[in-house]
Amino acid sequence: MNTRRNTGYTVGIDLGGTKIAAGLCKKGEIIRQFIVPTHPERGNDAVLETIVDAARKAIGDTPVTDIAGAGIGAAGQINPNTGAVNYAPNLNWRNVPLGEIVSKALGLPVRVTNDVRAATIAEWQYGAGKGLDNFVNIFVGTGIGSGMVLNGKLAEGTTNSAGEIGHICLDPDGPVCGCGKKGCFEAFSSGKGLENHVKSAFPTLKNGPLLELTEGNPERVTGRIIGQAAKAGDKTALLALKKVGQYLGLAIANVHTLLNPEVVLLGGGVMALREYFMDDLKAALHRHVLPMADRGDKLLRDAKFETDAVLIGASALF
Amino acid sequence: MNTRRNTGYTVGIDLGGTKIAAGLCKKGEIIRQFIVPTHPERGNDAVLETIVDAARKAIGDTPVTDIAGAGIGAAGQINPNTGAVNYAPNLNWRNVPLGEIVSKALGLPVRVTNDVRAATIAEWQYGAGKGLDNFVNIFVGTGIGSGMVLNGKLAEGTTNSAGEIGHICLDPDGPVCGCGKKGCFEAFSSGKGLENHVKSAFPTLKNGPLLELTEGNPERVTGRIIGQAAKAGDKTALLALKKVGQYLGLAIANVHTLLNPEVVLLGGGVMALREYFMDDLKAALHRHVLPMADRGDKLLRDAKFETDAVLIGASALF
Repeated sequence: MNTRRNTGYTVGIDLGGTKIAAGLCKKGEIIRQFIVPTHPERGNDAVLETIVDAARKAIGDTPVTDIAGAGIGAAGQINPNTGAVNYAPNLNWRNVPLGEIVSKALGLPVRVTNDVRAATIAEWQYGAGKGLDNFVNIFVGTGIGSGMVLNGKLAEGTTNSAGEIGHICLDPDGPVCGCGKKGCFEAFSSGKGLENHVKSAFPTLKNGPLLELTEGNPERVTGRIIGQAAKAGDKTALLALKKVGQYLGLAIANVHTLLNPEVVLLGGGVMALREYFMDDLKAALHRHVLPMADRGDKLLRDAKFETDAVLIGASALF
Repeated sequence: MNTRRNTGYTVGIDLGGTKIAAGLCKKGEIIRQFIVPTHPERGNDAVLETIVDAARKAIGDTPVTDIAGAGIGAAGQINPNTGAVNYAPNLNWRNVPLGEIVSKALGLPVRVTNDVRAATIAEWQYGAGKGLDNFVNIFVGTGIGSGMVLNGKLAEGTTNSAGEIGHICLDPDGPVCGCGKKGCFEAFSSGKGLENHVKSAFPTLKNGPLLELTEGNPERVTGRIIGQAAKAGDKTALLALKKVGQYLGLAIANVHTLLNPEVVLLGGGVMALREYFMDDLKAALHRHVLPMADRGDKLLRDAKFETDAVLIGASALF
């Protein structure tokens, strides 16, 4: 380890249930990137081999001694001290010593964090949260998660669960969430929540773009189809997107009333449909935020990074 | 100022709408305390004189050069940089340069913060939050406020409004709050909210302790009377207290899901009635918190300081 040279190179790895991306990076820029499907059904060992292989391909002929370390952002609950994955439902992993295994295989120090925190580090170091001491980065995808920089440090929480904004309860009588609770923010405003709003309206549909696009089969509802239906003026799709925006606004209002951050960053796949809900989001934000603390639309900012956020943030763990 | 000696003495001042308390302190202990009613109807100048007079009486014959400074915890919106009170509804103050005036009169450096943050500092330095890097101190009184220590620092927020937990929205269709919004935590669980729950049930009351204790006049409802009625088994009083507990549990669940603090401290006058709602609070907390983050009842802790919290915390500003 003493022979390691400080050249600015680091490795960033984005470990998701669908794809694994590994990149050789320098100060937030990806120099070489290698992306492969995860196929978790192959089992833990095969996935671990794929991770190491992808990292080696990204490293290429750069001497390992020129690399400070490898950071991994993984979709799951991480033990930040050991780098183990406690639980990752998308990978079907429990208690996998990810950091240790990858470190041995690559001959590099390894640090592991969860994917949303990695993406937040990317925004903080190189993106839309650069230089800020207090901001919240909300990722609105299939689920909803967040990373928070509070008082100049990434928030981890006492038992490493800080930032689980998707599971704040916005309505005790609301729809059931994947976590088992009722009325979670995620059940209203995530991609999954959006699909569920539309699916639950199916029995009442008589005609229109949604029925045409899905050929009448609610199982075919996806975010993409909802977007197409909304574009075609489908009222059910538009109403479902309105609800997504209203609860996003309510959740952001509560976060701002409590934490008063400099900005709230918004990213993730659902934000691609923002044109259909951004007005509702802003209206709900101003309706629900403490009036004396309302700072208007300047509270909101788009996240800078899209697909590369986790990889770049992971690379910045060194 | 160069002649000031470091003896450990500081002055703490609690400026409220009802009373002013000033104390000479040393490391969180009150050596001499002087308490007078505020009577804000006398006007700003009279109140300012009373503050200075109370501080002088607390200082007594201790040389001013032996005192590091005077801290003030005031019930209002403070500019922490200038020590001015921007707005204090209970005092009917707007833009009063409190820090400057008191500093000149006493010949001491003065720092000003709001009352809940001062109380939080008292708990952090000398009380139930001693040594913690992440905790939330919720004050459940006539209104509801909080102070938060996040990542080892008191949270102030970008525009100094961090901690306004009383105004997170728990139900967009809930009762109207004093701030003008609907369904604020404070509208459900504060002393004022508790009174309102009971008052709104008055038209349906036929008999029982509440009617007897108030002689049938809803304007006579107070927290004390609700407590007496609850002790006598009054169902309306007990139901109102149950609601207070349920929404306290919901709000604490959301705070824990988002921030994952080491503890949540509970203090304030409404907590004197805890025996009637603590079970409901805990049940709601466990029902609404993210299951994987649930840390059971050990999340909750009583605040240590009661009436002296603001004074002691203010004294710790130096």
